[in-house]
Amino acid sequence: MGYALTFEGLRDLAEGAAVLGTGGGGDPYIGRLLVEQQLKAGRTVTIIDAAELPDDALVIPSAMMGAPTVFIEKLPSGAGNIAALRALEAHLGRTAAATMPIECGGLNSMMPLLLGAQLGLPVVDADGMGRAFPELQMETFAVYGVSGSPMAIASDHGDTGIINATDNRRMEWLARAMTIQMGGASYISDYPMDAATVRRTAVPGTLTLARRLGAALRQARAEHADPFQALAAALSGTLYTHGLVLFRGKVTDVDRKTVDGFARGHVTLADLADPRDQLEITFQNEHLVARRNGRVVAIVPDLICTLNSETGTPVTTEALSYGQRLTVFAISTPDLMRTPDALDCFGPTAFGLADPYTPVEHLTAVP
Amino acid sequence: MGYALTFEGLRDLAEGAAVLGTGGGGDPYIGRLLVEQQLKAGRTVTIIDAAELPDDALVIPSAMMGAPTVFIEKLPSGAGNIAALRALEAHLGRTAAATMPIECGGLNSMMPLLLGAQLGLPVVDADGMGRAFPELQMETFAVYGVSGSPMAIASDHGDTGIINATDNRRMEWLARAMTIQMGGASYISDYPMDAATVRRTAVPGTLTLARRLGAALRQARAEHADPFQALAAALSGTLYTHGLVLFRGKVTDVDRKTVDGFARGHVTLADLADPRDQLEITFQNEHLVARRNGRVVAIVPDLICTLNSETGTPVTTEALSYGQRLTVFAISTPDLMRTPDALDCFGPTAFGLADPYTPVEHLTAVP
Repeated sequence: MGYALTFEGLRDLAEGAAVLGTGGGGDPYIGRLLVEQQLKAGRTVTIIDAAELPDDALVIPSAMMGAPTVFIEKLPSGAGNIAALRALEAHLGRTAAATMPIECGGLNSMMPLLLGAQLGLPVVDADGMGRAFPELQMETFAVYGVSGSPMAIASDHGDTGIINATDNRRMEWLARAMTIQMGGASYISDYPMDAATVRRTAVPGTLTLARRLGAALRQARAEHADPFQALAAALSGTLYTHGLVLFRGKVTDVDRKTVDGFARGHVTLADLADPRDQLEITFQNEHLVARRNGRVVAIVPDLICTLNSETGTPVTTEALSYGQRLTVFAISTPDLMRTPDALDCFGPTAFGLADPYTPVEHLTAVP
Repeated sequence: MGYALTFEGLRDLAEGAAVLGTGGGGDPYIGRLLVEQQLKAGRTVTIIDAAELPDDALVIPSAMMGAPTVFIEKLPSGAGNIAALRALEAHLGRTAAATMPIECGGLNSMMPLLLGAQLGLPVVDADGMGRAFPELQMETFAVYGVSGSPMAIASDHGDTGIINATDNRRMEWLARAMTIQMGGASYISDYPMDAATVRRTAVPGTLTLARRLGAALRQARAEHADPFQALAAALSGTLYTHGLVLFRGKVTDVDRKTVDGFARGHVTLADLADPRDQLEITFQNEHLVARRNGRVVAIVPDLICTLNSETGTPVTTEALSYGQRLTVFAISTPDLMRTPDALDCFGPTAFGLADPYTPVEHLTAVP
């Protein structure tokens, strides 16, 4: 049943998840190290399809919450993820049959693998964002009627909490404050649901997709091939139909602040040959909108990825710095993330952006 | 068993609790109205001695949390107090045999009475502060080894939470953030304990004391007697051995801000005959220290009460305003609140004050 993750598969998955993280989700490097430690200790990460679980099996997603800028200053020890799961199990009076990611981007693609290895729990190959988003209500689970509450939250210090909010936005609002008090980072278990509901509401196969994207980048490097063509090829035939280069340039400005528990700001890139040709990306943990000379060329929930122009290595928002040569690569989101209800939940207006949502493949791309 | 509170007893208790609230705890007026509504609807508030409960009976205290400045702008509906109690009962898997106040000051002397009337639960005649304090770890319960966690928190909107903190300070820290997110006010149930522990750690008889102080003020008014002499007389023979007038004057300045979920500031009074003779009080929800011309004349945990000079009516920190004629009345705290452990928990240093604790009866008082 399912497959066991190898060391190479883990490294590929981490890199692919950083691509899908669209600049956010936290750098998966730290999480990858924690999972590697488990594999070295002889433990196993088993990735399964939701179809392998009985309809009524309880699945409890697992994640970290907080600003990625905090995780790089205060490395997560991984101690709180078991505490969060156990607190939610105790509250529900039921035991989880599996865990899964709430987002397939960055660090949070690793945390369920860590928990799975620690406890011998299988990890469902799916997630609730199909990428990374900054807030807990921004889940396909939520769009399709699942309550995030009751959720559990834990610190690295042994504190735990349960939140039963009247809606998923209030859950985010209350959990964000707890996270800030816990030092800007917390471990959470939320959106507990049965496997039938996972199948109905999750974006399927995203852990395997991330692994394939990472493998494509690895192989392109080995073969001195174009990493962006490799990514586009790996995406074709998946739910993410389009992958295209939006811009290549040099970072000329980064404006980033950690406010209200988020990393918020802008990054500006200029074309190397024509510095008047500029692309500006606005982010809240994740990249939200890319504007080329003022015109929108990609907007949330489509994925805007900042990658090293030479190697295709993803660069997260907290690692952006002046002078980096980056290629901005866009990926179209799956159809279940483009419905009116989905756009209400995590489209442009959900982030206070006035621009309408237009699918990235309908906006002009640079070849 | 115990006694049922009358309308007159309730009014007396509310006024006496505002005296013991030392400027804080929130104005009991709103809470009194909520309890009166219950009495008018035929419900009963039964006040019992902790000795009347079996050793292992579960007592769950009930309170509101937040800045008093918020309560006067956004009246509590009382809807969340049952939710908080039920959330904690569900978490513990046990039912409360009684409730009680965590502080005997102001609004929080009323909230357990409201809950008791709503659910037919007796209210234990005791509390954990012997007055009001601004923070949840400032409890005799905590001083004498009781954990505040697990605690429950609820909003007026139907959200609930459970906090299991590693210590009572962290519980305060986490609950304060939830309270702020809940709009600056929340309903809490914390320090669940058995009746034997109540008897060991609580300040006994404070609801009845508050009722007697309120009755003393009422009778003094009816008889045109000095309300401050009436208060001092009512205190003699209780655990609160000394009651004395520190200063009489006019408010010449109020500096008050609602920050970090607290009402913080200073009030300055000047003597009517000699305006150079001034008393300044520093507060954090409650009055913390009174300095007459720079010299400390009373300091926490002794009680510093601001009362209308004519009527003896208590004036809470959120109601202080320029021009008021006030008498500053100090009350010595009971001995169990003056031990080294107690002073560590809620003495001057717990509030960042450099001045040492000196019992108010050893400092010079104005006759």
